[in-house]
Amino acid sequence: MAVHSTPMEKTIRALLDEKKYQTLKDVLGTLEPADLAAIFEELDEERTPLLFRLLPKETAAETFAELTPESQELLIRGFSDRELHELVNELYVDDAADLVEEMPANVVKRILEQADPEMRKEINEILRYPENSAGSIMTTEYISLRPTMTVEEAIRRIRRTGVDKETIYTCYVTTEKKLVGTVSVKDLLLAEDDETPVAQIMDENVISVNTLTDQEEVAQKLSRYNFLALPVVDTDGRMVGIVTFDDAMDVMVEEATEDIEKMAAILPSEKTYLRSNAWDLFRHRIPWLMLLMVSATFTGMIITGFESALAAQVVLTAFIPMLMDTGGNSGSQASVTIIRALSLGELDFADLPRVIWKEGQTALLCGGALAVICFGKIMLFDRLLLGNTDIGVLTAAVVCFTMAVTVLIAKVIGCTLPMCAKKLGFDPAVMASPFITTIVDALSLLVYFGIASALLFG
Amino acid sequence: MAVHSTPMEKTIRALLDEKKYQTLKDVLGTLEPADLAAIFEELDEERTPLLFRLLPKETAAETFAELTPESQELLIRGFSDRELHELVNELYVDDAADLVEEMPANVVKRILEQADPEMRKEINEILRYPENSAGSIMTTEYISLRPTMTVEEAIRRIRRTGVDKETIYTCYVTTEKKLVGTVSVKDLLLAEDDETPVAQIMDENVISVNTLTDQEEVAQKLSRYNFLALPVVDTDGRMVGIVTFDDAMDVMVEEATEDIEKMAAILPSEKTYLRSNAWDLFRHRIPWLMLLMVSATFTGMIITGFESALAAQVVLTAFIPMLMDTGGNSGSQASVTIIRALSLGELDFADLPRVIWKEGQTALLCGGALAVICFGKIMLFDRLLLGNTDIGVLTAAVVCFTMAVTVLIAKVIGCTLPMCAKKLGFDPAVMASPFITTIVDALSLLVYFGIASALLFG
Repeated sequence: MAVHSTPMEKTIRALLDEKKYQTLKDVLGTLEPADLAAIFEELDEERTPLLFRLLPKETAAETFAELTPESQELLIRGFSDRELHELVNELYVDDAADLVEEMPANVVKRILEQADPEMRKEINEILRYPENSAGSIMTTEYISLRPTMTVEEAIRRIRRTGVDKETIYTCYVTTEKKLVGTVSVKDLLLAEDDETPVAQIMDENVISVNTLTDQEEVAQKLSRYNFLALPVVDTDGRMVGIVTFDDAMDVMVEEATEDIEKMAAILPSEKTYLRSNAWDLFRHRIPWLMLLMVSATFTGMIITGFESALAAQVVLTAFIPMLMDTGGNSGSQASVTIIRALSLGELDFADLPRVIWKEGQTALLCGGALAVICFGKIMLFDRLLLGNTDIGVLTAAVVCFTMAVTVLIAKVIGCTLPMCAKKLGFDPAVMASPFITTIVDALSLLVYFGIASALLFG
Repeated sequence: MAVHSTPMEKTIRALLDEKKYQTLKDVLGTLEPADLAAIFEELDEERTPLLFRLLPKETAAETFAELTPESQELLIRGFSDRELHELVNELYVDDAADLVEEMPANVVKRILEQADPEMRKEINEILRYPENSAGSIMTTEYISLRPTMTVEEAIRRIRRTGVDKETIYTCYVTTEKKLVGTVSVKDLLLAEDDETPVAQIMDENVISVNTLTDQEEVAQKLSRYNFLALPVVDTDGRMVGIVTFDDAMDVMVEEATEDIEKMAAILPSEKTYLRSNAWDLFRHRIPWLMLLMVSATFTGMIITGFESALAAQVVLTAFIPMLMDTGGNSGSQASVTIIRALSLGELDFADLPRVIWKEGQTALLCGGALAVICFGKIMLFDRLLLGNTDIGVLTAAVVCFTMAVTVLIAKVIGCTLPMCAKKLGFDPAVMASPFITTIVDALSLLVYFGIASALLFG
């Protein structure tokens, strides 16, 4: 969707115009599926089916899986039943399930009609699981071995059945569908004796996830143990599929993006930026903007409440933005750090007292340093240099004391709210900067006017 | 470092107290290196060397690689030369290089003394590359094949040399050190004829990175193509190492955390939250807080400049927080979205006009909606319900018009600054909420007072 064409896109367009299909085939043959998909997205839609037919079957399926749902739908609508049949059965089961989930009902019907019975069964299996669960992102294609097989038999089995499997490098040893161990192709290849039974070299300490485990946890586990794939078992301990590292990587990127969006008060979207139009962006951004604007009413009410005091001491108004911004920034530093640590699984609710203690200390350090510098700035810059003689030592003291208290409040709220949100089952990422800023704004103004009333007007 | 001990930690402590070493050995044998490392971090430091000695050599090395630098240093100081020798030469080269980078000089000296000459050479090789480059995270242990080998010879070679290699599943075909193709163990195992030469089944479209490529780009490439490992070549095209998927996953998590920290005005840190003390947190947070506080001086100066006008119309002050917050939130929505898209490689500078156009449209939609709601809120809630008769239709109009203009300014600045920063070679993540908020604050106040002066005081 970038406005500028790459040289490769130009070449392909030219070759299409000149109908040099053999050359095109050779050129496409040098590219990886991800690159092919990126190029296909850029071309005029009526030409993609033609290009698609020039690809070898397997590459075509992998490229198809990388396309956006919109392009997939267009392609399918252009396919004959036979072409669709070939494509669907060449896809990995998890990609096929994703496809069925994204397409409108009439396209789904055609896809399922063209899927082989075995494929159809497996797609439906995966679709039963809730969104973002291990079950929904797993593939049911993996290699299972029996513990009694020898190394030689195991290797033979892999060679016979491996071509359809998404990963062959970790094999799962099962008895009566229960997962009893794992063995890697490396272990099999490096085994000294071909007659050794699999049971003897397999790793019995199996780490697995449940079909209902959240995809974020799956990705973290896989990354923690550096596994190529993680087995997924149902509630009865029967093995039902695997989640592979490449899908886990996608989940990690997706979840980080989602957290970042939520932290910036945006409803998460699955579309990339360039594919979202202004209306999409508006829909994802307006709800929080609206809510936060309305909740800023409290801040306004606080100022209105102190209106007469402010009219007498207008100089106080000039420091409101600085106090509010510093409070907001301090709070967002704390909340964002905590949210990230929570989502990487480094913290849990039991750590709350320690976290508050640590943030409290940090707040005293930050608040103290800021107050000292701020005092100097007000006295030297605002009073001496700008000659603003309305500002006395007492005013400066009120501002700086408020500053320190605000930083303390901001940091403590900033670390507490995300942890409590998580404990209560809400998403901690929502408790980030914008939300906390609104609360801290109101509190810091109350502190400001409270202290000012006591010291300046008392 | 969590305050609460897990049952496993309690069991291990008890077994240590009772000196039941055989049972301990069996218990430890059921755990993965990542779990062992987590447990070792929790124990009293004088007991870890003992536990460490109970582990099989390979597990010990993998566990060691997962420990924090502090624990690694303590362990090494407790090791005899023989123990250190065994450990160092059992480590993967990239882990050994990481270790050398983290340890103080006298420990490094001991490590390099105990490393075998080959190991020492490879460590030094990796250490030559700049931080965060592909060269610095690669391992030099990979399987290379010649194009003339047959499938059978290739498999035999893997079986003979594979045990030391970090990944054996992708093999690299080289002639005179130049990378000419890749072949997967899957392809070798599934080859129909054992006599087929490797050249015939290898993939000649090699995707590689240069030793100096940034690690973030390496991780993105690996994830884009779903590779297990990515070959690294020097500027003469000679293959020097590989980056494996597990290291790429770590890079992705690390880079996302760094971006999030920068977006929240925190200097990135490599320590996890629980391992950072208040002083660490202070040092990473205070620079931006200080800078942003001082730059809020401009906002204060603007208010001071309109002090007399404000004294006449104190009611205007009550809307300052709402206008500033909404501006800040709108700007941060735009900037954070753009920063994420930049760091995932979805956008580049040439897209700037499109981005501005899209953000402009979004801003008009958001600003329009907010202005309408805000007008209703002011007239119904503030004026009618709260009986604040100071607020006339004209005042409400000034506030709402400022709101719409502020949103527009905020979104356009929010999308433009990160893209320009990237173009100029700076880190776009720094151009996030806090920075943009400060600029938008000042601009929105200028607009507010400008419009107010024209309409209310003119």
